Amino acid sequence: MENFFIIMKIKVSIIGATGYTGFELIRILNNHPNCKISFITSRKSESEEISIQDLYPTFFSTENIIFTNLDIEKIAKESDLIFTALPHRASMKIVKEFISLNKKVIDLSADFRFSNIETYEKWYCEHEERDIAKKSVYGLPELYRERIKGANLVANPGCYPTSAILGIYPILKEKIEINENIIVDSKSGVTGAGRNPSLKTIFTEVNDNFSAYGVGAHRHEPEIEEKFSELYNIPLNVTFTPHLLPINRGILSTIYVTLKEDLDESKIRNLYNDTYRNEYFVKVLPKNVLPSTAMVKASNFCFIGLKLVKPKNQLIIVSVIDNIVKGASGQAIQNMNVMYGLPENRGLDFLPIYL
Amino acid sequence: MENFFIIMKIKVSIIGATGYTGFELIRILNNHPNCKISFITSRKSESEEISIQDLYPTFFSTENIIFTNLDIEKIAKESDLIFTALPHRASMKIVKEFISLNKKVIDLSADFRFSNIETYEKWYCEHEERDIAKKSVYGLPELYRERIKGANLVANPGCYPTSAILGIYPILKEKIEINENIIVDSKSGVTGAGRNPSLKTIFTEVNDNFSAYGVGAHRHEPEIEEKFSELYNIPLNVTFTPHLLPINRGILSTIYVTLKEDLDESKIRNLYNDTYRNEYFVKVLPKNVLPSTAMVKASNFCFIGLKLVKPKNQLIIVSVIDNIVKGASGQAIQNMNVMYGLPENRGLDFLPIYL
Amino acid sequence: MENFFIIMKIKVSIIGATGYTGFELIRILNNHPNCKISFITSRKSESEEISIQDLYPTFFSTENIIFTNLDIEKIAKESDLIFTALPHRASMKIVKEFISLNKKVIDLSADFRFSNIETYEKWYCEHEERDIAKKSVYGLPELYRERIKGANLVANPGCYPTSAILGIYPILKEKIEINENIIVDSKSGVTGAGRNPSLKTIFTEVNDNFSAYGVGAHRHEPEIEEKFSELYNIPLNVTFTPHLLPINRGILSTIYVTLKEDLDESKIRNLYNDTYRNEYFVKVLPKNVLPSTAMVKASNFCFIGLKLVKPKNQLIIVSVIDNIVKGASGQAIQNMNVMYGLPENRGLDFLPIYL
Amino acid sequence: MENFFIIMKIKVSIIGATGYTGFELIRILNNHPNCKISFITSRKSESEEISIQDLYPTFFSTENIIFTNLDIEKIAKESDLIFTALPHRASMKIVKEFISLNKKVIDLSADFRFSNIETYEKWYCEHEERDIAKKSVYGLPELYRERIKGANLVANPGCYPTSAILGIYPILKEKIEINENIIVDSKSGVTGAGRNPSLKTIFTEVNDNFSAYGVGAHRHEPEIEEKFSELYNIPLNVTFTPHLLPINRGILSTIYVTLKEDLDESKIRNLYNDTYRNEYFVKVLPKNVLPSTAMVKASNFCFIGLKLVKPKNQLIIVSVIDNIVKGASGQAIQNMNVMYGLPENRGLDFLPIYL
Repeated sequence: MENFFIIMKIKVSIIGATGYTGFELIRILNNHPNCKISFITSRKSESEEISIQDLYPTFFSTENIIFTNLDIEKIAKESDLIFTALPHRASMKIVKEFISLNKKVIDLSADFRFSNIETYEKWYCEHEERDIAKKSVYGLPELYRERIKGANLVANPGCYPTSAILGIYPILKEKIEINENIIVDSKSGVTGAGRNPSLKTIFTEVNDNFSAYGVGAHRHEPEIEEKFSELYNIPLNVTFTPHLLPINRGILSTIYVTLKEDLDESKIRNLYNDTYRNEYFVKVLPKNVLPSTAMVKASNFCFIGLKLVKPKNQLIIVSVIDNIVKGASGQAIQNMNVMYGLPENRGLDFLPIYL
Repeated sequence: MENFFIIMKIKVSIIGATGYTGFELIRILNNHPNCKISFITSRKSESEEISIQDLYPTFFSTENIIFTNLDIEKIAKESDLIFTALPHRASMKIVKEFISLNKKVIDLSADFRFSNIETYEKWYCEHEERDIAKKSVYGLPELYRERIKGANLVANPGCYPTSAILGIYPILKEKIEINENIIVDSKSGVTGAGRNPSLKTIFTEVNDNFSAYGVGAHRHEPEIEEKFSELYNIPLNVTFTPHLLPINRGILSTIYVTLKEDLDESKIRNLYNDTYRNEYFVKVLPKNVLPSTAMVKASNFCFIGLKLVKPKNQLIIVSVIDNIVKGASGQAIQNMNVMYGLPENRGLDFLPIYL
Repeated sequence: MENFFIIMKIKVSIIGATGYTGFELIRILNNHPNCKISFITSRKSESEEISIQDLYPTFFSTENIIFTNLDIEKIAKESDLIFTALPHRASMKIVKEFISLNKKVIDLSADFRFSNIETYEKWYCEHEERDIAKKSVYGLPELYRERIKGANLVANPGCYPTSAILGIYPILKEKIEINENIIVDSKSGVTGAGRNPSLKTIFTEVNDNFSAYGVGAHRHEPEIEEKFSELYNIPLNVTFTPHLLPINRGILSTIYVTLKEDLDESKIRNLYNDTYRNEYFVKVLPKNVLPSTAMVKASNFCFIGLKLVKPKNQLIIVSVIDNIVKGASGQAIQNMNVMYGLPENRGLDFLPIYL
Repeated sequence: MENFFIIMKIKVSIIGATGYTGFELIRILNNHPNCKISFITSRKSESEEISIQDLYPTFFSTENIIFTNLDIEKIAKESDLIFTALPHRASMKIVKEFISLNKKVIDLSADFRFSNIETYEKWYCEHEERDIAKKSVYGLPELYRERIKGANLVANPGCYPTSAILGIYPILKEKIEINENIIVDSKSGVTGAGRNPSLKTIFTEVNDNFSAYGVGAHRHEPEIEEKFSELYNIPLNVTFTPHLLPINRGILSTIYVTLKEDLDESKIRNLYNDTYRNEYFVKVLPKNVLPSTAMVKASNFCFIGLKLVKPKNQLIIVSVIDNIVKGASGQAIQNMNVMYGLPENRGLDFLPIYL
């Protein structure tokens, strides 16, 4: 649409843009009216010139972008904000350098997600940038909007934690009395495994198949447990079981919480509705409607369904997101919008494609 | 985005909005800055109040719309343009009434697609509205843009014909000498079969499976043959074989044309590039890049790949579209944009989701 | 293979053979060396002659079978054993009649699965054949082999209960001290929904999608709860959540049991290995190997993986079966083998196809 | 089944058994009553002990087999017949050595498939074993049964050629007058690409997607063209276009042949029925029944559907096989049965699983 007035353009760069989260950032930003991509980088570009159309021929639908090398000074000069979409550990140093150059950073790795660095070090590796880690903000806008507004470094949450935390947040916030053991049984599409070919993700091994993996040993478990406990102010135990779905996009988490109070389902639903009333991206479904991953496909929405089983007082929460949108790149852009005072849904107001 | 100037709002209604093309119209129009949906209708609404959220819970992401009965006068009063998404035959009369009330109509059925009414009657049923059929325009904007601009009734092309015609058009337009027998081997996703449950489209019968159907007897064959012959000014024979793919969205047509002239592939590619240079939605892929349906998924684009096999002079054209966007609802909205003098990609400038 | 000695041939008939369980019975029995199919019936055959090749063209690979009407006397005369593959309620009367005629019956409906008829009546409908219900045996050979040997009426277990019971049986049998609340989070392929077209099972609504359904209200929950409680001799609460997978065959159940004893994982694994040591169809996977549905695809096997999470003492059991083989028709044939003193794997000793 | 008489046991070994064709050989041979697997080899076993259960946990359903190194003398000593399932070129030397040791060999690579070594060298690489190549027999039993009986070296056909040749054979054999240009538009499942992870075969790039590849440049084109021409005794031109289907198993080939004689469809169907009347594995479908890949899933069958479009005399043949059974490992075992005078369907008489 033509616009006769000046539109703010945030200059952004994406570090490590060859994977699916990089792809999705570029795809969404392409239609964001207040954004301009300055640089996208890839290690591969050091040996040969590659473009986004080489890696993803779907981009023949629009203008090509050439990858550049990671020249931090040059990139910083032409960027207001940096998205780092790198593996954990690789992110730390690079984030630090951009922060030192007074750039805002949204980091999609796990490096800055933990309040407790010891937990990070137990599950990942040694942390070499504890100072800036302390100042990072966990980028779940529905919970931490105010802190994100003023942040220079936002740690974009993991995909599983996003679905789990949004699913249980009203219960924890309201300090409903619950059993300390919470079960999060999650099922994810294969984009969550990234674009690196491996035996476990080739088509023939995943198609018409379904498997559990990393049971009791997935790195998103401590992230979920830390955030749950912080929100509840009491330590909680989370048993987290990820499964691999033969679909591209989507996470569905089935969360089991045993209530110690004798509430009824409508009270719980009201609590959820009140909590998320003003949230554009989180929708609580009516009684007897349960969400499916397709309902939020290729969108930034989170849908939540609820069922309270009596007389056990077993609350079953079913939460769905698109793992590479609300679970990664869409949420990163939502964070950017918050950081720049833009409407939170700017560039993200497209509906789920469903089919 | 806030806008401080007046934006034209076309009031549209959708007749028969419960199927997938209706769904897709509503989904795309929801983000169209120059459109406002007045009414959506369904026969089901006669017996009970139903809403779009009842039929497609994915619409809990946005405002609900209630279906109304088909009260033509009331709808006409509040609408500038009508999309009719009805089965063939059911469309005829209703289209005629809206046309009589001076409304613009884009019809997604087959009722007004044929130049030769006898062909229509041979493959479908008796035609009861020959007068307005004569004035209808075949709504493939890349070929018939000028006529669409002034049309009151646009017949939106079939999904298979869209992919076939865009694939071969440069050859026919340029009057390249070809063998009169053309083979169109097409493969379609299951949304093309609509949302009516049937044994042939239940998941278990389609998943991990692939089949040919309607070989030599599909109703899109005469539509393709008529348009090919008109564009070439010489009668052509088309053998059209549809197949059912275990995917939701997408058509890939592999088109075999035997050239009688001794051209080389780069000449053919140049011809294609010249033909489609100014088209936003049609992209000719470079040498050795072949399209896949995912490359245009959930978008209004058509990608075309080319291979000329020597010394047989066998030209193989591979064309892909999303069957419910460029093959149906997206193209309908593109036609609307043309009819109202809007930029042709207004509301349609989203990239393919690919994954 | 030629055989120079006399082979026992059991004459079997299948009542209600048009659905997927009927299909699978015919498919497997076709290669069973001790079986001969006498009749297959369908209500549809009353109005027109139909054959198995009409309904399932895959049977053009072998000899055709014509459906007959349900003439109980005629069928009984030519049959030793009857498989009834009918909807619940429809089964009752017909089973009773065959039993009265001294035929053995394996019933694949829910009508005779419950020890407690009141539970059946609460979840299904009034029970009109309580007398024979009392004498029926629950057909899970690994648990009730001895009783099945002498039974005239075997109630073939539900698919979800089969996966859940085999998964937890060693714990219950050994009376390990556990928390009374057990969570069974199950995911099933679409064949479990049968071959009746419905909006919920058309390809486009299931493909690239995943959903929860019937949360806290599925009829297999009371079946699971009754069998768990009987095996443990103490009432247990089961929270059962079924989900619909975009695959054809397979159920994966993730079972959460909180141990009150402080055991270690190897002890648990030993218990499982001891319990199933002599079972042909149940395999306990080694440490750190988790099952997937493809591992048992199109076979009668059940694979079980185990993980004990410390210090919570949360035992996670992952159990997989093919829902229409071990979860239905394969198990029915296994029951037949037991009833006739045949090796339990006769006709069922094919390996999973995996891909 | 117990057998009181002596059963012939062919001792076989499989060279290169880690891929999908190796897997499928082991899976099928496991139930073959006249076969005993002596050795399976893998290059990986040189550095570490690996077993079939390590590579394919589905084999926990049966006895484990340990891989051994490629010690040709040792293997030859304990084997009557060798299956070589190696990449082309790697096969040549090894096949030669086993042949020199008077072992029978069935080679699943392309190395010995061509009558014309120059064609092989143009499309693959230099051929270093021309002497034994001359004596190899093309292992399509339905066409070359007599020669296979006496062969020491059988070259197992490619998957695409198997589907194409069986589809057109009656026409060529009968010398029906046809246009010399034949189009074979084939669509294959992903197992055809083997088990090596690559960007093109990861789940997310194939799922809900469909693409053409290798258009006019696939190595199976010259194989098809050579065999077609030999069978017709006149050189024929084949345009072969492979496509990648989002399914595991199955090839569907749509073959377009223009008849120069004015025949009708029933004559053609009779010709097909006559040709294949005594073939266990090839089935010609009745009028208006078209095959799908699921109809032959996980079986050794080939189904053929026919449609003659008048007045163009365009014959459309639709042929389906399971690419890793009839298109590879099943056909190899069928060849073995022929070589040893066993019934051709021995160990292969299982029905398609369909679902």
